[in-house]
Amino acid sequence: MDFYKAAGVEPIGTYQRTHFSNQVTKDIVGKEIVLIGWTHILRDKGKIKFLILRDEHGTVQIAIPQTKVPEAVFETSSQLKPETAIAVHGTVVATTQLSSGAEVLPTKIRILNTAERLPIDIVEGKVDIELDTRLNYRILDLRKPSINAIFRIQHSLVRFAREYLESQDFVEIHTPKIVAAATEGGANLFEVQYFEKKAYLAQSPQFYKQLMLLAGFGRVFEIAPVFRAEKHNTRRHVNEYTSFDFEMAWISGVEDVMKMEEQMLNHSFKKTKEFAASELELLGIDLEIPKIPFRRIKYTEAIDLLNNAGKNLAINDDLDPECEQLLGQIFPEKYGTDMVFITHYPLELRPAYTMPSMTDEGMTESFDLTYKGMEITTGGQRIHLYHLLVERFKAKGFNPDDFTFYLDPFKYGAPPHGGLGLGVERLTMQILGIDNIREATLLPRDRDRLTP
Amino acid sequence: MDFYKAAGVEPIGTYQRTHFSNQVTKDIVGKEIVLIGWTHILRDKGKIKFLILRDEHGTVQIAIPQTKVPEAVFETSSQLKPETAIAVHGTVVATTQLSSGAEVLPTKIRILNTAERLPIDIVEGKVDIELDTRLNYRILDLRKPSINAIFRIQHSLVRFAREYLESQDFVEIHTPKIVAAATEGGANLFEVQYFEKKAYLAQSPQFYKQLMLLAGFGRVFEIAPVFRAEKHNTRRHVNEYTSFDFEMAWISGVEDVMKMEEQMLNHSFKKTKEFAASELELLGIDLEIPKIPFRRIKYTEAIDLLNNAGKNLAINDDLDPECEQLLGQIFPEKYGTDMVFITHYPLELRPAYTMPSMTDEGMTESFDLTYKGMEITTGGQRIHLYHLLVERFKAKGFNPDDFTFYLDPFKYGAPPHGGLGLGVERLTMQILGIDNIREATLLPRDRDRLTP
Repeated sequence: MDFYKAAGVEPIGTYQRTHFSNQVTKDIVGKEIVLIGWTHILRDKGKIKFLILRDEHGTVQIAIPQTKVPEAVFETSSQLKPETAIAVHGTVVATTQLSSGAEVLPTKIRILNTAERLPIDIVEGKVDIELDTRLNYRILDLRKPSINAIFRIQHSLVRFAREYLESQDFVEIHTPKIVAAATEGGANLFEVQYFEKKAYLAQSPQFYKQLMLLAGFGRVFEIAPVFRAEKHNTRRHVNEYTSFDFEMAWISGVEDVMKMEEQMLNHSFKKTKEFAASELELLGIDLEIPKIPFRRIKYTEAIDLLNNAGKNLAINDDLDPECEQLLGQIFPEKYGTDMVFITHYPLELRPAYTMPSMTDEGMTESFDLTYKGMEITTGGQRIHLYHLLVERFKAKGFNPDDFTFYLDPFKYGAPPHGGLGLGVERLTMQILGIDNIREATLLPRDRDRLTP
Repeated sequence: MDFYKAAGVEPIGTYQRTHFSNQVTKDIVGKEIVLIGWTHILRDKGKIKFLILRDEHGTVQIAIPQTKVPEAVFETSSQLKPETAIAVHGTVVATTQLSSGAEVLPTKIRILNTAERLPIDIVEGKVDIELDTRLNYRILDLRKPSINAIFRIQHSLVRFAREYLESQDFVEIHTPKIVAAATEGGANLFEVQYFEKKAYLAQSPQFYKQLMLLAGFGRVFEIAPVFRAEKHNTRRHVNEYTSFDFEMAWISGVEDVMKMEEQMLNHSFKKTKEFAASELELLGIDLEIPKIPFRRIKYTEAIDLLNNAGKNLAINDDLDPECEQLLGQIFPEKYGTDMVFITHYPLELRPAYTMPSMTDEGMTESFDLTYKGMEITTGGQRIHLYHLLVERFKAKGFNPDDFTFYLDPFKYGAPPHGGLGLGVERLTMQILGIDNIREATLLPRDRDRLTP
């Protein structure tokens, strides 16, 4: 049976896309091409129609004057509704009406799939739809070029950060997400029924990436989902996100980790600026490459800056989102940059595995990277000395016996090491000036949202 | 307080690794170098000791003749136990005893971390330890160069497969692993307590990667964990594994998907052969690059081959592991290759979203890729026509109302598309001739194993 005929559509058949929309310029006037995509906008002026075809790289105008196109083409164009999937065979012609200098005069239009009336408008600037509604129709919402562009940029950031690490002899690992114990205590864990046992979803690959250094991989990275059962619903939290983690052995100290991150981000920003130039332009983003070295300040200096700005913080107080935002205003004025490492956090504010500082009593060899008023990375040197690690676990109120799978390997020549975790969605939102992390998450999961 | 002194070790300090073990050759005789790694083997011959240092790229011999090294070095070397973490400063000297033509005469040895007596032996060839015991001590087991090499090769395979897709305009996506509904019915799902709701762990990114094409990404891929609550415990199943998925829009048919996979694997095998040459050599693997195009045969032909070989199969019978193994013996003889696409599986054996064939009644536009007697990929063209898709869901006994988040977007101009899922661990095991998939899984999760 012919499923296509039954659906009133045609197969692509021998049609092969020859050009993307953004390749239709005056340089190829006269060329016969095939474009494939969706009916983005159709303007019917009676004897002439203008079809804006959208594909993954932009839009292109198809002019359909009744007198100049085959009758079948004019007829087919009357059947087009917004979001009809089509293939257009035609000739590139010059026009002064468009900045590209070119449009297409079609010789054939093939309908590849039909479209019902859309439940939300996806032509930009027409209606301002609430985020929640847009997320309900996320698949359609993503068709907006400006929304789609966010994730092309995100891909580019990840791709080139990974490229840098691979150039530095890092090995990519895939560690389990179903785990028997928490990384940092039992809070914020999703419970899984694992056959007859209770298990949990990993809130971080922290223990495993460290253990892989103890397993003889010198440098490892992982880009994978993590799960946080945080009950609050804020603009900067989702319950499942993509964590970009790396960990490196044989370091002299935490400075080696920070240097690696600087180089990695510098490379990623530079390459993204080139590779995703058109997406950045579409979003009106002039991506500034952060100069290296990034500025470093100590936690205690940050506390002073905040207190000078009217806060009333004591040592060991957390730098909450409000503080981060305030620092995001202070840093550019004071240091001429919005990318700052805050170092030497107190032992009290850091996880049990963080290396205590020998120079700054009560502090740690750790850091956060803040970018435009938000923490996007947490990292540090880790404890590689077994007895110190056990002591710190106890000091944090953990029972070391619950963590033998993690602690025991430290008895056998664990290398000095450190690393970091970078939130992919947070990095994306800060770069693009997005206010709510859900906008930078392909299919967000939050307190109230488990679909689509 | 000096944590290092308390632990009886030294910090790396200003020591920086200048060379990896595999870079110590007769070409650099006379050079002063720093090596960092573990005491792999120590042979004490009284007045001379031989220390084999292991790092992430191999091993190197340090000769310690009492008369030729500083007294402190000779003394330190007496404290070394297997797996002590050390830094060695020394001079490269020529030797005819080793194939590398060089060993190191140390001027300083720094103990970076101590090691207790190991619970399992990790020097290769000494003792044959059961897999289960080795997996209990997985972190130590991975220190064996031959075990570590498996995952360096796995990284290379994934890296260069991804590289190929990125060259072909694919976008990497990160889709949620906590989902509200099953991809292919309710079997084999792990249940998650998601706040007050019941949710599940994704058994595949299938629905989401398809939806991303409907969302306007032309080509997408994802490399991420998937979760299968299969109760059996076989040599080719684990309950969490890494799935390498891609999906491409605007295809003419399933052949486009198979061609993409051929090119991708060809590229990945070729680059891995270069990049992971030393790891492949260590494992004694002469990686054969599969010639393209791969051989294609239809499911019905495979059934005939099997029946000729003594089986008694009917159309719609599944090709079980035993059949796959038998085909793995037949293919090289008959077709001169161990990499074969089996196409046109019956509708009955394929998921609801698989495109029915118009040429082969009752069959589908789908394929498996079998490699050395095991299926490593399942793929196909997907249904992009809404009414056909709903009809096929019903035919499989599903209630379409349970899948509106997936089905509804097909109303709005869904592009023709297809794709595949490739098991990263299975590909690794077939390439390396590994018998049990747990050996090709960094930290396996099975019916009985939830740690480390």
